[in-house]
Amino acid sequence: MNIVILKEMAPYERRVSGTPETVKKFKALGADIAVESGAGLSASISDEDYAAMGATVTDRAAAVSGADIILGVQGPDPDSISGAKPGAWIVAGLNPFVERARIDAYAVGGFEALAMEFMPRITRAQSMDILSSQSNLSGYKAVLDAAAEYGRSFPMMMTAAGTVSPAKAFIMGVGVAGLQAIATAKRLGAQVSATDVRSATREQIESLGAKAIFVESVAGIEGEGKGGYATEMSEEYRQAQAELVSSHIAKQDIVITTALIPGKAAPRLISDAQIATMKPGSVIVDLAVEQGGNVEGSVLGEVVERHGVKIVGHRNVPSRLAADASALFARNLYNFLSAFWNKENNAPVLDEEIGNAVRVTQGGKVVNERLLQLTGVTQ
Amino acid sequence: MNIVILKEMAPYERRVSGTPETVKKFKALGADIAVESGAGLSASISDEDYAAMGATVTDRAAAVSGADIILGVQGPDPDSISGAKPGAWIVAGLNPFVERARIDAYAVGGFEALAMEFMPRITRAQSMDILSSQSNLSGYKAVLDAAAEYGRSFPMMMTAAGTVSPAKAFIMGVGVAGLQAIATAKRLGAQVSATDVRSATREQIESLGAKAIFVESVAGIEGEGKGGYATEMSEEYRQAQAELVSSHIAKQDIVITTALIPGKAAPRLISDAQIATMKPGSVIVDLAVEQGGNVEGSVLGEVVERHGVKIVGHRNVPSRLAADASALFARNLYNFLSAFWNKENNAPVLDEEIGNAVRVTQGGKVVNERLLQLTGVTQ
Repeated sequence: MNIVILKEMAPYERRVSGTPETVKKFKALGADIAVESGAGLSASISDEDYAAMGATVTDRAAAVSGADIILGVQGPDPDSISGAKPGAWIVAGLNPFVERARIDAYAVGGFEALAMEFMPRITRAQSMDILSSQSNLSGYKAVLDAAAEYGRSFPMMMTAAGTVSPAKAFIMGVGVAGLQAIATAKRLGAQVSATDVRSATREQIESLGAKAIFVESVAGIEGEGKGGYATEMSEEYRQAQAELVSSHIAKQDIVITTALIPGKAAPRLISDAQIATMKPGSVIVDLAVEQGGNVEGSVLGEVVERHGVKIVGHRNVPSRLAADASALFARNLYNFLSAFWNKENNAPVLDEEIGNAVRVTQGGKVVNERLLQLTGVTQ
Repeated sequence: MNIVILKEMAPYERRVSGTPETVKKFKALGADIAVESGAGLSASISDEDYAAMGATVTDRAAAVSGADIILGVQGPDPDSISGAKPGAWIVAGLNPFVERARIDAYAVGGFEALAMEFMPRITRAQSMDILSSQSNLSGYKAVLDAAAEYGRSFPMMMTAAGTVSPAKAFIMGVGVAGLQAIATAKRLGAQVSATDVRSATREQIESLGAKAIFVESVAGIEGEGKGGYATEMSEEYRQAQAELVSSHIAKQDIVITTALIPGKAAPRLISDAQIATMKPGSVIVDLAVEQGGNVEGSVLGEVVERHGVKIVGHRNVPSRLAADASALFARNLYNFLSAFWNKENNAPVLDEEIGNAVRVTQGGKVVNERLLQLTGVTQ
């Protein structure tokens, strides 16, 4: 069983799909590990660190040659992995809704591609969930990115020259990222409030010591969809939320938006007119900027200023914490493969519930239900 | 009594010496306030904000014309303020040891220049102490700057994919900046240790919940000099400290150095050889980089990498929190002038202890004892 850890080639990608820790664990399972030279550098892991755990460090062609399983953070270029065994697995974050052409190429190439972001949100798969592990770090980093741009202190400071007021931080969208953003902003001493379309999050918000800001008595507020994801809201709800935000946001120093709907454009939560009501020097971090943005005027990869308010739209936020993001991502992949490891075959054998959820190509075809439903194509 | 708030002209200076709050307070004392147009923009204060408090907003020449007191964050260009009244005060951070030529020009111009960084560290002057107010914010920002560069999380995180270890942060130099750095790193969830040349700081370190790292049984450790500042250490102490640091630093993820000696180059605390023992991905923030640096290889205004360790050497760290830094700086200046305000004259009249400490020019001459001692010039 040959497992390969590739160097990521996508721009702005600093993470790596395996670490010395997971190399060691895969070796203990009985697998051979090849690492593409330089794979870990941007996450502060040297080739020697991998080699010390028993990995073979080499170039991509040699690493991929005869591979059974190819690990990646993002999906690798199909041409660059043609030397792998027929039917080899690709285990990575494949971004299938956006990168559909690449998924098709994996099918044509005879790969069995497993999209880790399709991991079902069930208890036994929690430790395999890359969206959760990476969102957690994004929520942490979003607060630091806000603090980096903010010209004031987050905590209250009692100084000889007088008191510095604490920052008021508002977290919109209380999934994994939002919860960690609340916790981090609280840690740093801000006065934190939060909202979400799922009213069940109210308790979570309050248990973290933040104030829950909720649209009340509006139909369509119960936005919890299949698998714990948020679904789209009614137009009535959107309008009520926008009004609530309009009054609350004008008093905020920091706003962090985290609202994503899988496979769809991110919902618009903040309009330009609402930004204009904020105090100059306030900061908005749009964690959904790569999916079109929650904030009007946010620009992918840039910090822009509108009405004196900075709008932060960093790309690939988990990559901005490359070392920890890689450590958790690599553990997700190890937890996934090891949970299904068959000692006799010395290879993982997936079960139906998880296998069918994550598998996007097999036997030359695109096979995933979510993907086929969305595109309306059946093969 | 005409008081002027100038727009700062020095590169990288984003602070301003007066705010709408202090304008209002000065007006209440009976002073007239002129503000140079655009003075507050980089600190998120508009001309309209000043005007709303009763300030006259105009260009520099008009603002300075007939001025009694000129406020600044840094010392203004002497030529640009020649329209002020004879004997007008310049109240600012004048950096007299470094900017001696400019001090001489103030003397020639007939100004009475008051160097706010020479404020004695006595109880009644605490609220006037710009070094203290700005260092406090520098200590806070240093931790955020470290967290911005660090590829891992500061707090421990217990996630479904496993535990993320907390960062180990070591603060070298426990003055105002160091104490705030300890407090902020603790807030963010790091494991914090600290050291200083003054053993009296041990209690302060421990009271903030950090571990005190001290060279024991070495002569020259009691480094507390006049006015609560650190003095230079014996060679024996330096060596012992370097050895202690060598063993401690190799285990650290984050190091923040804050050691300054007024009027002298910053002491070297970390050598290149010591940096080489640190883990790749670690971060050092050198808050003394503008005074020559505590860290070998730190570069003013840059983030450089040595042995896989990032060394952060940002310029003018208080300016990176321009809004709060300006608010506290402006209060320091207001507290200073208002404490000595003479209702009858409608003007401040300094006493001997503070006046002699901060006054650097008067009657066409450089008059400050510390300045004259250092340069060996008497006039």
